[in-house]
Amino acid sequence: MKKTSFVSAAALALSFAMPASAQMSVEDQIEARQAAYQFMSWNMGKIKAQAVDGEVEFNADQMKAAANAIAAVANSGMGALYSPDSTLDKAENTRLKPEFFEQPEKAREVGMNFGREANKLQEVAASGDKAALARQFAAVGETCKACHDNFRAK
Amino acid sequence: MKKTSFVSAAALALSFAMPASAQMSVEDQIEARQAAYQFMSWNMGKIKAQAVDGEVEFNADQMKAAANAIAAVANSGMGALYSPDSTLDKAENTRLKPEFFEQPEKAREVGMNFGREANKLQEVAASGDKAALARQFAAVGETCKACHDNFRAK
Repeated sequence: MKKTSFVSAAALALSFAMPASAQMSVEDQIEARQAAYQFMSWNMGKIKAQAVDGEVEFNADQMKAAANAIAAVANSGMGALYSPDSTLDKAENTRLKPEFFEQPEKAREVGMNFGREANKLQEVAASGDKAALARQFAAVGETCKACHDNFRAK
Repeated sequence: MKKTSFVSAAALALSFAMPASAQMSVEDQIEARQAAYQFMSWNMGKIKAQAVDGEVEFNADQMKAAANAIAAVANSGMGALYSPDSTLDKAENTRLKPEFFEQPEKAREVGMNFGREANKLQEVAASGDKAALARQFAAVGETCKACHDNFRAK
């Protein structure tokens, strides 16, 4: 056992629902990736409400935080949460099509597009430009849709 | 209806599972906050595995991304996901104690401590110092534990 005296016993005693990717079961992968997208979706919803629909007053700081959250998801290494055994024909509680692994170049392309547009969203949100944020929100949304259309069952 | 011609129809057609906080039901609040913490937990698990336990090889870029994700959760305005009707005595699928609203100063204190330590985690991770990251991981863990001890049922 490694020396961990500098880490408090209390912190070590904390259990983390999601273990590191190296040890994750298919069930944990599915749960973790859905949690990540749900967290992202909540933050996309804030940008939609404030910058697109205008149903909530525009708050540049909140938009910046929301875009940071979306970019953080995009940059978090979500790929580790996808394994060939975690598709809908082999696992439960997922809509991931096996095509995700049968078309690796396409899967990589949609993933990279998402990352690029999410990072741009973070930049645009930092500028405080509401109209530009609405446009970039749409660009991110397109990359979400591309993955859903290709790799998520209805 | 507002003019949204600059936003593509495809993006507008996307449905977001989580609406903006202003319109969220108690059920949606509970689901969104649990997703956020689960996404955070996955990222805490990566730091634990690489910087604390050493069971996965240390990768500074991955640690930076994980800490960014944790800070993004902490800064995302999670407070909007807590309403007095969303405690365990009034809602399902939650362990949130009513004490969270009965002790607002304590709740604010634990929340602010979490935010402060999560932001520091992001700074420390950017430095690439493994030992410092392990120490700061413990500091963040303490703030998680403080909230669980005070406001989460066993």
